[in-house]
Amino acid sequence: MNKNMNGKFIVLEGLEGAGKTTARQAVVEQLNALGITDLLFTREPGGTPLAEKLRNLIKYETEEPVTDKAELLMLYAARIQLVENVIKPALAQGKWVIGDRHDLSSQAYQGGGRQIDSHLLETLKKTVLGDFEPDFTLYLDLSPAIGLARARGRGELDRIEQQNLAFFDRTRTRYLELVKDNPKAVIINAEQSIERVTADIKTAVKNWVNSISL
Amino acid sequence: MNKNMNGKFIVLEGLEGAGKTTARQAVVEQLNALGITDLLFTREPGGTPLAEKLRNLIKYETEEPVTDKAELLMLYAARIQLVENVIKPALAQGKWVIGDRHDLSSQAYQGGGRQIDSHLLETLKKTVLGDFEPDFTLYLDLSPAIGLARARGRGELDRIEQQNLAFFDRTRTRYLELVKDNPKAVIINAEQSIERVTADIKTAVKNWVNSISL
Ligand SMILES: Nc1ncnc2c1ncn2[C@@H]1O[C@H](COP(=O)(O)OP(=O)(O)O)[C@@H](O)[C@H]1O
Ligand SMILES: Nc1ncnc2c1ncn2[C@@H]1O[C@H](COP(=O)(O)OP(=O)(O)O)[C@@H](O)[C@H]1O
Ligand SMILES: [Mg+2]
Ligand SMILES: [Mg+2]
Repeated sequence: MNKNMNGKFIVLEGLEGAGKTTARQAVVEQLNALGITDLLFTREPGGTPLAEKLRNLIKYETEEPVTDKAELLMLYAARIQLVENVIKPALAQGKWVIGDRHDLSSQAYQGGGRQIDSHLLETLKKTVLGDFEPDFTLYLDLSPAIGLARARGRGELDRIEQQNLAFFDRTRTRYLELVKDNPKAVIINAEQSIERVTADIKTAVKNWVNSISL
Repeated sequence: MNKNMNGKFIVLEGLEGAGKTTARQAVVEQLNALGITDLLFTREPGGTPLAEKLRNLIKYETEEPVTDKAELLMLYAARIQLVENVIKPALAQGKWVIGDRHDLSSQAYQGGGRQIDSHLLETLKKTVLGDFEPDFTLYLDLSPAIGLARARGRGELDRIEQQNLAFFDRTRTRYLELVKDNPKAVIINAEQSIERVTADIKTAVKNWVNSISL
């Protein structure tokens, strides 16, 4: 198969309520405008039968305390199922994949928020995922208080959404550290109106697609 | 709490059909004969509400292929739940814990059988479990053909039990490598009659308990 026929993997990242799910439509519209229409949507954790069962355990286990490490390991188990069984085959067929969260979420939430040993996180990323990574990441940045207020408007909070503000502050800080110097990522100011966020996302996607088509 | 009041963690290891579950009774009888009666039994994967749900996914997932890495990560997620929420608290209360499988199974099955990257296995063991390890391991050694014939007599084989003989040969080889020079482990010839195996186990347990009581 011609390598150039491969699709691209674009990921939306950010705290709860940042607007990731809302932003997907903007990405789709911009890609369509550029003639890219063969799209696949994924979300993490989840996106395969086994990964969705793991998502359920990760978010809604209530019979016993879930250790930070078990949470992290379940996230990576779900992720590798999604990558191997869904994302890679789709990319190989030329589809563009738009992901609602991916590995950066673990680096930020489990590394920053939960403060899990960075050696374990690095080894998991390297040994589980190898050199697989998103082609482009849009990080929707906003203060946790604003994001949580939006998320609360959506309904009941799950086990992770119930963490305190300090947890999300650490998560946001880690997100910013990781995307700051990443040439394959952009930071979108997600505290703006939906219209402004949408416009910024479309511009970022357009600029990036043009840059890789040169 | 007085460190000397802590219980001990004894683990039974071996291929399917090696006689681990059968052997438990011999361990119990010998411990009781030595006046040790406050016992707790665990099995892996499993032993906590979340770990049992993971056991189910590990052994009986049929909706999609389970990647070797996802299997390994789920095993460690289940293990850390069991260690933190069940085994460590029991040991701290002075109970002796008898485990049907523990970390050595992952080293042998996932490392030997599935030939997963040894760096990942080592990092998981070190970073997830830290310095927690069994006080004593009884490895029931037998040829895979004999073990599988016994296991088949027990009923339907699960996803892992359905592997081919070469898989179990690699698993046995790794088991032997790992217990050979381990001062905290003994090898029991599990191809003998149940009576002989039982006698060997009782002797091994008695010798070990006497050695640590000196
Ligand atoms: N820029 C924005 N300003 C105000 N509300 C927003 C904005 N973006 C999204 N929302 C609203 O906030 C809530 C969470 O958005 P959502 O896209 O589900 O976030 P996420 O998927 O990142 O958790 C939704 O009700 C959505 O309509
Ligand atoms: N030494 C032995 N000789 C013959 N059969 C045995 C022996 N030990 C166990 N069995 C039988 O083999 C089967 C598997 O034993 P089991 O203890 O369940 O093994 P494991 O727990 O290691 O899979 C059982 O039916 C058991 O009665
Ligand atoms: Mg969302
Ligand atoms: Mg058994």
